[in-house]
Parts: sequence; structure tokens; C-alpha cells
Amino acid sequence: MSNDIARRGLMLVLSSPSGAGKTTLSRRLLADDAAITMSVSCTTRAPRKGEVEGKDYYFVSPSMFDQMAQGNGFLEHATVFANQYGTPIEPVQLALAQGRDVLFDIDWQGTQQLRQRAGDDLVSIFVLPPSHAELERRLRARAQDAEDVVQARMAKANNEISHWAEYDYVVINDDLDSTLDKIKTILDAERMKRGRQTGIAEFARKLMD
Amino acid sequence: MSNDIARRGLMLVLSSPSGAGKTTLSRRLLADDAAITMSVSCTTRAPRKGEVEGKDYYFVSPSMFDQMAQGNGFLEHATVFANQYGTPIEPVQLALAQGRDVLFDIDWQGTQQLRQRAGDDLVSIFVLPPSHAELERRLRARAQDAEDVVQARMAKANNEISHWAEYDYVVINDDLDSTLDKIKTILDAERMKRGRQTGIAEFARKLMD
Repeated sequence: MSNDIARRGLMLVLSSPSGAGKTTLSRRLLADDAAITMSVSCTTRAPRKGEVEGKDYYFVSPSMFDQMAQGNGFLEHATVFANQYGTPIEPVQLALAQGRDVLFDIDWQGTQQLRQRAGDDLVSIFVLPPSHAELERRLRARAQDAEDVVQARMAKANNEISHWAEYDYVVINDDLDSTLDKIKTILDAERMKRGRQTGIAEFARKLMD
Repeated sequence: MSNDIARRGLMLVLSSPSGAGKTTLSRRLLADDAAITMSVSCTTRAPRKGEVEGKDYYFVSPSMFDQMAQGNGFLEHATVFANQYGTPIEPVQLALAQGRDVLFDIDWQGTQQLRQRAGDDLVSIFVLPPSHAELERRLRARAQDAEDVVQARMAKANNEISHWAEYDYVVINDDLDSTLDKIKTILDAERMKRGRQTGIAEFARKLMD
């Protein structure tokens, strides 16, 4: 007989410089683990072809976005190229209360905002590339671009990497499979944290009856 | 190529009421994981037949023990049936600095003392039995004793269980193999904590070169 103890979900942040494999890791984690879902952001930009409301984004008007921001309705939000993006609180709170985990694909700035709102619900992992040479190789492979564009990408990557010390865990992505295993290990362990196991108090009380 | 980042060891405490399987779990964890060793205590009691100095215990005189206690040389210590027992600090600090983990088999009182001295080095797991009936069955099976002796054991178990909320993780021992896996998962995740990976700062600096 297995004891299924009720638990509170957690917010998992994976951050990394581009070229460290984060997008692939996120996709595979979501495919392998039914208890975790991707956070869906609100945005003021227009839907692109094929994007689905409520799956890719919640598409909202600028005035709606501002109203939500003023009402503290976002866990974090930012403006990128004149468009606004934000993580609405309510779906996340509902998921956590139901024992479901939520994955966030945000950078160090978003994570700093999230950290202030999330408290103990947040688990943050920084994924580092295995070496400078490999990072540069991946950034060049992605961009068939001029040297100054590659240099700008490197500078952006360095800026992201400089924030590794703000994260709970650091994982080096030597190999995609073993890195995915490490992320799953962290997730499994965090789910066993005493504070998340909301059903344990009742279970322990019955043991002592 | 694998990146072996230097790390600081951790102190792992497994606590549980007797009858929850802790002794077996400790023995199997030590056998399976070469990076963790059992903490060796000092004691003032006489060696029993077959006990080895420095492996089972450090056997010390009462005056030596008192001197160590007064000099803050113990992470925790206690008197049990007129004999003194204590965990000496120095071997533990050496192990942690060398990236080796140390396992402690101590009760909630020892853990409270350890918590004050260990800070972030401590990872504490409370192992609960799967049910009241199963706990009672195990305590009866261990003791071919009179009812009042069994009742005293149950009272002691209840007292231990009442401290579950002071631990970082809580694991229910439904099944020995899966519980061992859970403990290993926690240990693996804790080893990836940013603060323990003492080599990451240098590694990240090289990435940004």
C-alpha cells in the first residue's frame, strides 16, 4: 500500500544563457512528467499564425495588461520590443493549491521578480553550458550572422551567466540526457520537502493515535 | 567530457522512531554510496567485544570527554544510562572540506543540537512508518516483552514522531527499496545545491572569459 500524501505544488524556474539547452530540456521535462505544466503568460502582442489562446499565451489588450499590473495580478512582467509580457498569478496559485507544479521559462530579471512573490514555492535551477568554447560554438551555429551579432549574443549570454549565484541549484549541461535526469532528481527531492507535504501533519497525527 | 566541480560535503541526518527501518536504510546507503561515511562518536563506555576503536567509536575517558565538551569539541552530545556519547567536530569538518558527506544516526534531541552548529551543511530527513498498525507490529516483533514494555516503546516512538516538523524532508517508509531510492534522490539533489558547489564560481568565470 502506498501512502499518497497531499502536497502543495512548486514553481520551477530554469534559467540559462541561450545556447545552454534550456528550451530542449523544458520540452522534454514537460513531456516526461505529467505533474508539471508550463506557465502561460499574458502578452499585448498580436497572436502569430498557429498560436493558441490560453496555450501559447493569453492575448490581452494594453489597457487590460496595465490594469492587471496595477492590481498586482502578475508574478513578474516585462516590456520587450514595445510589447508587454507577464505571468498571471491566479492560474499559478490554483495549480499549486491542487498539487501541480508550474515551469517558468524566464531570465534572471523575471526570476528576481518571481523570487519576491513566490517565497518557499520557488525552486530555481541555473543551467550552465559545459565550456566557453561550446557556448560560442552553439551561439554561432544558431546565428548565420555577422561577427558583431555573434559578439552581441555572447555579451548577452555573459550577462545572464553572471547571475548564476542567485539560483538554488546549478547544473552543468554536459549531456542532455544526464542534465534532464539531474533536473528530475531536483524536482523529485523538492517534492519531498516537509513544507510542501501538506498531508503529513494529519498522517503523523494518526500514527501517534 | 564531464565537469567535476569541487563541492563541499553535507551532513545527512536520518531520524525516525525505532521500527521505521532507519538502521537498515543507513546500512544500505553506506554500502551503495562511496561518497558518504558514518559519523563516529566518542563514548565513555567500555568497548564491547568486537568493537573497533575509530570505527565503532572513539573510546575516551570521562575527563577527556568533559574537556572536549567544554572546548566546544562536540557537534552534539548526550548522557545515556550514565555513559556519555558525543559527535566530535574535527573529523566532520575535515570530511566536509574534502567533499565527503557524513551520515548521522541521532534522535531529535541530537538533531536539534546539530542544527545549531551545522547551519547550511545540514540536511535532515525524517523517516515515518507507513501506519500506526505497522509501527506497533514492528515494535512487538522486536520485543518479546511484556505489554508494559511494548507500551513504553510506543510512547517513545510517539515522542520521536512528534518532532517530524523540525526536519527538511519527510519520507514514509512503505517499502524499503523505494525509500532508499528517495533518500538517494534527496542526497543527489542536495549535492547540486549552488552553495555546496565550491568550484562553480571559478567555472562560471571561465565561461565568461
